[in-house]
Amino acid sequence: MTFRDDGAAALDWVADYLERLREFPVLAQVEPGEIRARLPAEAPDAPEPFAEILGDLDAVLMDGVTHWQSPRYFAYFASTASDAGILAEMLTASLNQVGILWRASPVLQELEEAALDWLRQLLGLPAEFQGHIEDSASVGTLAALAAARGAAPGRRVVVASEHAHSSVDKAARILELDLRKVPVDDAFALRPDLLDLGGVCAVVATIGTTSAASIDPVPQIADACDAAGTWLHVDAAYAGSAAVCDEFRPLFAGWERADSIVVNPHKWLSTPMDCSALWTGRVDDFRDAFSLVPEYLRVTEEVVSLNEVSIPLGRRFRALKLWFVLRSLGRLGLQAMIREHVRLAAEFERWVDEEPGWEVCAPRCFSLVCFRREGTDEENEALLARVNAGGEVFLSHTRLAGRYVIRLAIGSARTTEDDVRLAWNVLRREAETG
Amino acid sequence: MTFRDDGAAALDWVADYLERLREFPVLAQVEPGEIRARLPAEAPDAPEPFAEILGDLDAVLMDGVTHWQSPRYFAYFASTASDAGILAEMLTASLNQVGILWRASPVLQELEEAALDWLRQLLGLPAEFQGHIEDSASVGTLAALAAARGAAPGRRVVVASEHAHSSVDKAARILELDLRKVPVDDAFALRPDLLDLGGVCAVVATIGTTSAASIDPVPQIADACDAAGTWLHVDAAYAGSAAVCDEFRPLFAGWERADSIVVNPHKWLSTPMDCSALWTGRVDDFRDAFSLVPEYLRVTEEVVSLNEVSIPLGRRFRALKLWFVLRSLGRLGLQAMIREHVRLAAEFERWVDEEPGWEVCAPRCFSLVCFRREGTDEENEALLARVNAGGEVFLSHTRLAGRYVIRLAIGSARTTEDDVRLAWNVLRREAETG
Repeated sequence: MTFRDDGAAALDWVADYLERLREFPVLAQVEPGEIRARLPAEAPDAPEPFAEILGDLDAVLMDGVTHWQSPRYFAYFASTASDAGILAEMLTASLNQVGILWRASPVLQELEEAALDWLRQLLGLPAEFQGHIEDSASVGTLAALAAARGAAPGRRVVVASEHAHSSVDKAARILELDLRKVPVDDAFALRPDLLDLGGVCAVVATIGTTSAASIDPVPQIADACDAAGTWLHVDAAYAGSAAVCDEFRPLFAGWERADSIVVNPHKWLSTPMDCSALWTGRVDDFRDAFSLVPEYLRVTEEVVSLNEVSIPLGRRFRALKLWFVLRSLGRLGLQAMIREHVRLAAEFERWVDEEPGWEVCAPRCFSLVCFRREGTDEENEALLARVNAGGEVFLSHTRLAGRYVIRLAIGSARTTEDDVRLAWNVLRREAETG
Repeated sequence: MTFRDDGAAALDWVADYLERLREFPVLAQVEPGEIRARLPAEAPDAPEPFAEILGDLDAVLMDGVTHWQSPRYFAYFASTASDAGILAEMLTASLNQVGILWRASPVLQELEEAALDWLRQLLGLPAEFQGHIEDSASVGTLAALAAARGAAPGRRVVVASEHAHSSVDKAARILELDLRKVPVDDAFALRPDLLDLGGVCAVVATIGTTSAASIDPVPQIADACDAAGTWLHVDAAYAGSAAVCDEFRPLFAGWERADSIVVNPHKWLSTPMDCSALWTGRVDDFRDAFSLVPEYLRVTEEVVSLNEVSIPLGRRFRALKLWFVLRSLGRLGLQAMIREHVRLAAEFERWVDEEPGWEVCAPRCFSLVCFRREGTDEENEALLARVNAGGEVFLSHTRLAGRYVIRLAIGSARTTEDDVRLAWNVLRREAETG
């Protein structure tokens, strides 16, 4: 078999998969260890035909897939790989660029800078922000806090709300910074009246927290940071994409004053995993933190390679898929998708609100609804377990103000109102049978 | 156009590209900023057809590609995306798994563990080593040194040879550890007689340094680490793959005593960027460094998710391509490729050695030859610039014992003896015309 034949088989597989997304149980219905137990203990000695391996993807692996591409995926924050994004990843792999420095792939670096500038404009961020791509918001936040630490010698404290993402905790641990958590108000937003920035090298403000999609008061936080000379990092990993819509821009007030911002196109902008955008107006502080040019990477051209502003030396050509996605959907396509998701979330919120025995548990921001059924935490947990065990839809949970709540997050580009309606029907059905 | 049609066009593009690899200038022949200047200043408003974007890949971007896939790529360390690896990346993107915890993708976690265990066996590493995949050796080394730092409170020094990779410097800077560089011997290997491990939390030993592919004396270093209770991290990012061949195993003596090891299948095992393997027998120390389970990720199943042993929360389904590559090539295929590369490097070394006016500048280890032409550093630098400007081949340089030397690293799965012969002819031609 040739590459063209194997490729045609793989492409058919993908096309069939995308057409059949609603047929799979959304949450993988396997026990821990079940997939591994099906795999041979060792690699084969002799080469195996591609068709055989592709066949085993179905026979052995697919039961272990949780279908992030399903229109009925409502857990955590969804991630959609659009058609153009999927094909772009094949192109990326075929070019196999390894961006260790500019000359090793001029196109990788320059398209990364250009695509991030396109996205910067789409989100309404200031022209002085320079962007690059990280694999994850975790690594982007780690990099930003390392830059912030270096920019403020002697300050060893990071401040964030108690609803900040766990990656902030992890970054603080790696950087040996003390993380001080600030309580939130009734809307799960950081209380700026409790900010005390003495000795603080950075504040992480979140626009769209993981638990509740709540929005920290960035303007007041920025004021406090200005006064204290403290770095402001804005984590908008999920919600940042909504800034493509003018009507949501007010929710991002103040983020243009950040020293660094993280937004994940691999969450809500139809870009396949992984693609996390980081912008900063303080690129020199990133260079101070990360720039190292050993002899074997020294060149004559005067270019700041992207490895000098981030942790890994080598980077994948992630910009290519972002370029394909931004062009294939356009500003209008991205806006339409995000508007529809927010509309559907508002619809779902209304259904919950109007149904006796159910309660919306947080102000709805963006496309996330936090809610629960009357009864104990244990009953809600059991309800969610039944819902997910059926495989029709997949939702996740969190805890807000000490109570167990269910999260329905809309973010798949393929989700329709019927899919959201199904989720609501399954929830009510399982609540009745519980 | 449908996904199937667009996909067929993309697949044709890839197949054509792979058939035409020798037609492109290996090193991109563009000036800094040239690609970016060709790109529109902003993203389009309206969606654009896939065919148009694909067309612009040729019209706008390809001049900025340095062809890592070229059989005539001899710079740094090569990276080959095999046919199966390329197609697997499309499958990965279509499944779009986001491995934030086990249940979010059981198959991602279990195949990652299984594939790394296959690879562990192929390399002859101990059964107690557990593996996972990082995006880069930079991040793997950072993670290992963070674990080492946590395991030895109060010790703030890392030791490595002066030829250790720059990622060790970067990790030490991020972790605020002092990096103490140990001089090397005439073979560019760390001098163990100069080791002093008081207060040292970790030693990084390299098997296959970036400049010269030299091999630190791991058994002696392991002895010293044992005596001092010091963490031993082995950086075998490039050369580790050679351990699939029994005859090269003696070069890896002692690495089974490491606390952590990094090997990059995306370098010499035909796996597309990115796929860096990390094994450790001290997984509890990694968990101590990185485990955090916020409420929104808490589940009932008792599984240690991979985010608990590494820096990013979310991970791509990189194991799928590794599984495709290991199966499609098999142990025998991988061995044959690596043997041939080492044979070709030995051939090239002989040609240089036998040619008047040329000099081999380091003992050849694995598939890297370091050499120079008689004359000054500047003359050698100018020679290399002329060679690369022609686009026929791409080589890089380093500095050994204070002298500028040219590196020819063989690592593309598509490289034949004719390609290596071409490199030698181009070098001699440009030396004559210089």
